[in-house]
Amino acid sequence: MSSPIGPATAAVRRALDAIASADRPEVWISLRAPEELLAEAAALDAGPELPLRGSILAVKDNIDVAGLPTTLGLPLSRRPEPAATDAPAVARLRAAGAIVIGKTNLDQFATGLVGTRSPYGAVRNALWPSRISGGSSSGSAVAVALGMADLSLGTDTAGSGRVPAALNRIVGIKPTLGLVPVLGMRDACRPFDTITVFARDLAAGAAAAGIMAGPDPADGLSRVTPADARLAAPERPALGIPREEDLGSLDAAARESWDAAIARWGSVAELHPMDISPLLATAKLLYEGAIVAGRSAAAGEFMTDEHGLDPTVAGIVRRAAAVTGAEYVRDRAALESARAAALVALDGLAASVRLDGLVIPTAPGHPTLDDVAADPLGVNAWMGTFTNFVNLLDLAAVAVPFDDGADRGFGTTIVTRAFEDGVALDLAARFLGEEAPSGLGDDGVDLAVFGAHLRGQPLNRQLEELGARFIRTIATAESYSLFALDTVPPKPGLVHRPEGGASIAGELWRLSPGALGEFLAALPAPMTLGRVGLSDGSEVVGFGCTPAALDGARDITAHGSWPAYLASR
Amino acid sequence: MSSPIGPATAAVRRALDAIASADRPEVWISLRAPEELLAEAAALDAGPELPLRGSILAVKDNIDVAGLPTTLGLPLSRRPEPAATDAPAVARLRAAGAIVIGKTNLDQFATGLVGTRSPYGAVRNALWPSRISGGSSSGSAVAVALGMADLSLGTDTAGSGRVPAALNRIVGIKPTLGLVPVLGMRDACRPFDTITVFARDLAAGAAAAGIMAGPDPADGLSRVTPADARLAAPERPALGIPREEDLGSLDAAARESWDAAIARWGSVAELHPMDISPLLATAKLLYEGAIVAGRSAAAGEFMTDEHGLDPTVAGIVRRAAAVTGAEYVRDRAALESARAAALVALDGLAASVRLDGLVIPTAPGHPTLDDVAADPLGVNAWMGTFTNFVNLLDLAAVAVPFDDGADRGFGTTIVTRAFEDGVALDLAARFLGEEAPSGLGDDGVDLAVFGAHLRGQPLNRQLEELGARFIRTIATAESYSLFALDTVPPKPGLVHRPEGGASIAGELWRLSPGALGEFLAALPAPMTLGRVGLSDGSEVVGFGCTPAALDGARDITAHGSWPAYLASR
Repeated sequence: MSSPIGPATAAVRRALDAIASADRPEVWISLRAPEELLAEAAALDAGPELPLRGSILAVKDNIDVAGLPTTLGLPLSRRPEPAATDAPAVARLRAAGAIVIGKTNLDQFATGLVGTRSPYGAVRNALWPSRISGGSSSGSAVAVALGMADLSLGTDTAGSGRVPAALNRIVGIKPTLGLVPVLGMRDACRPFDTITVFARDLAAGAAAAGIMAGPDPADGLSRVTPADARLAAPERPALGIPREEDLGSLDAAARESWDAAIARWGSVAELHPMDISPLLATAKLLYEGAIVAGRSAAAGEFMTDEHGLDPTVAGIVRRAAAVTGAEYVRDRAALESARAAALVALDGLAASVRLDGLVIPTAPGHPTLDDVAADPLGVNAWMGTFTNFVNLLDLAAVAVPFDDGADRGFGTTIVTRAFEDGVALDLAARFLGEEAPSGLGDDGVDLAVFGAHLRGQPLNRQLEELGARFIRTIATAESYSLFALDTVPPKPGLVHRPEGGASIAGELWRLSPGALGEFLAALPAPMTLGRVGLSDGSEVVGFGCTPAALDGARDITAHGSWPAYLASR
Repeated sequence: MSSPIGPATAAVRRALDAIASADRPEVWISLRAPEELLAEAAALDAGPELPLRGSILAVKDNIDVAGLPTTLGLPLSRRPEPAATDAPAVARLRAAGAIVIGKTNLDQFATGLVGTRSPYGAVRNALWPSRISGGSSSGSAVAVALGMADLSLGTDTAGSGRVPAALNRIVGIKPTLGLVPVLGMRDACRPFDTITVFARDLAAGAAAAGIMAGPDPADGLSRVTPADARLAAPERPALGIPREEDLGSLDAAARESWDAAIARWGSVAELHPMDISPLLATAKLLYEGAIVAGRSAAAGEFMTDEHGLDPTVAGIVRRAAAVTGAEYVRDRAALESARAAALVALDGLAASVRLDGLVIPTAPGHPTLDDVAADPLGVNAWMGTFTNFVNLLDLAAVAVPFDDGADRGFGTTIVTRAFEDGVALDLAARFLGEEAPSGLGDDGVDLAVFGAHLRGQPLNRQLEELGARFIRTIATAESYSLFALDTVPPKPGLVHRPEGGASIAGELWRLSPGALGEFLAALPAPMTLGRVGLSDGSEVVGFGCTPAALDGARDITAHGSWPAYLASR
């Protein structure tokens, strides 16, 4: 009797079958040999449990994978050398059990949002082959949408990790710049490039993004998540949406889908129309201004040999060479001011509503391959209407699919402040009706609460204002007592009583260390924070009170929780 | 009987006398009228106490002061329009009681480190008039050195806030980029410019810098101090110093002073020779690479009219116009990598010693005005040997004077990581034998400790590792008891006991909210943190313990403190 097939081996076989039956050769620039994949899978199946064990990973061909060439969308003859090492982002996913199946087609030099600018062929849409896949991470998006991979890496400067997600009805996670190391990724338009994840469901994508995130000391663009970063959105979020006059670029089908999507967003959050015209204007700096010089810095070296250059891309890179340094410095300054203005708008300094994020259409329509051929630059620019500004203004984004039965791709993107990737994921999960995944790169501290900070209790908003994330309900070890204290508002005091105690119900929240420090700094007497033992044997930071506060306080342990006591009164 | 003269009025009179007797007309580009100054002083004297009341402030003439032109070192005829408003940095100092006395001479467009590149004349050194003042903040440094102002603002890209401090034997504080708003300051080489402070003593300069610091929502370059920033250096700091082979640029006199200064630094910290050649190589990118394009972006508009242009500066700005955007992007990338490498070096990832900072000579020598006239570019480049790299690599710095009796100016600079301005000020104060001033832009939380975290006790290093700053010894209100707990290491439990308590001695430390959160996350049972009342009636976060920990614990309140109890055993 043969041993059962392990999960990694099964996943590789499924992926190979999907590749064979999909008949989309333009998706791939290189594929690893089946025997090599199966050997790697067998080793994983024989090894320890890993968070991504057996996840099949496709990698955009501007990111290094050891042993495979990194073509950037140039003919293989021009870039035949295999990469010596994995990019750190790839290495982290592999260390977590993912299996790289191959490298995917892209708009050359990651310059484009259409997926047609490649000598390897135009990448057809996963669902409607006469329409575009979107780009530049075209192959990666289609590979995931058609089940040829479970996860894929894109890169995103102008929207390349989001537009293809919308058009192929999958999730696209675009982390804050610097959160995922860009070492081993070829610049598209430095320093506005980031590695992104595509997945069919948000939780899988968020898990991969979380594994990739974290600084690399050798990466000059790595940034550390601030110690007081928000981890989640409040229970009733406030989100900005474009005003009517900011939506003129949507075609009729996209407009219909937008209206339906926004109706669903309205069940997730309070929606506040805001003037996003400054954001849309900023977008133009990416190609029409001097920022495009980054494309010449990245790809200018390839312009001396015409072989295999995409003519549209080559034209952009050549024009980018004419930008002066002074023009570039001035446009960077303009971006810095625009970023400050965007934060003022989000913070509601003018409108007195602090917004947790912004919801926008991911793309304003879904063109056919023929549409792009007829107007390569015009259609491409149109595709970037709602995506171009996001990296320029240093924002985080998650593109979520929306299926209202239309016969083309559409989606919305939730945009948040830099390092509020966890807030964006939280909101995306609520829109999709999924459980909130963990944030990216946040080393939160767990805090056990038992009284006025519980959900529905008067001080819960303090946790929300600090961006705390609700984790789960908990119970203490069987060695605690609860007392009703003489405080305003009324609060319970949780006391460790090795003998004669009980298990008390509460909630576990997670917040950043900076938020916890601020919370403690504002905590009034007689409350204290220290170690609390939970029923599963773990210990976390949790509420207690000073011994003096117990004098004359009523023992309410028998109620089992503060809400139960309150209900009994 | 006339009323006594108020302090602000007296300060204005002293400053006017100093200006008259100094006979250094080249220091000033514009001076406010005496009657206007005296009226402003009288109003301040009649008003409430203010932290800088009566401090006389000189402002470099590339920073806006309402009602005075901002010439940038161009002839007044080319820039006659008075500024409409104060730069935020100036406004904050004025709101704190400072009186702007006038605008100071500078190397044109803040381009230079010599103080001779101005149509208003070469600024002579405060102490040795045949030698240079240093630049570009020449007038501001000499104004403070000669007592014509108490404080002055410089700006610093390549070292303009530090070199003149060394050469005129005063303190120069160069904050982390983005900490002090640069709105109302004319770019020199964006985004590497910062506003700096000169003062005769560190405490005065640090107070002013602290008042200027803090984000401005309209400033695209403002940055927020991280929530876990270190506020102070440990008791026994580790500092990097250049290796012998990195000091070849020092002339004989500077070398002698360096040896004497480093002997004093050795009493402040453990000194670790480190290879600073990568830092010195980075410095060359500022003028020899593409970063100089920022000078064209800032001053290119003035090149069409020759009148009053300094020929050396004009030559630099014109050459800067030839840089391409792609070259600029590549040199920014090189800087980003160099910054990452510098942090790896400081973090001791290679050498296993984490450095709290780096001590370097501020300038490698002190040339005469004639030396500069003979070789304007060569001497200027030499002056920037040890300063050019600091802003390029996003570091903080404080230039401290050193007087070993030599007949020329010399000083050392303490360089720290971005946002560790408080660490640099702390170390500078120890070198100067002064009390540590407050940091810049840090909103620390006070923490009262009573046991194992006191200085000299076994867990004190936990506070040091989190960058906590010792504030002072304290005593609780007369309502606390102290118990010896059964813990390892031994710890006391502080308990609020409204009746029958005593005052318990301890220490107050300040740490960032993020550091406090991390401290709490690692705090073992039975210790707790909550509100503690002090003898002055204030309440701070402080140590306590769980009620159960007191069972059978010995009451040691009578000893008055944990160390006193330990000593009694």
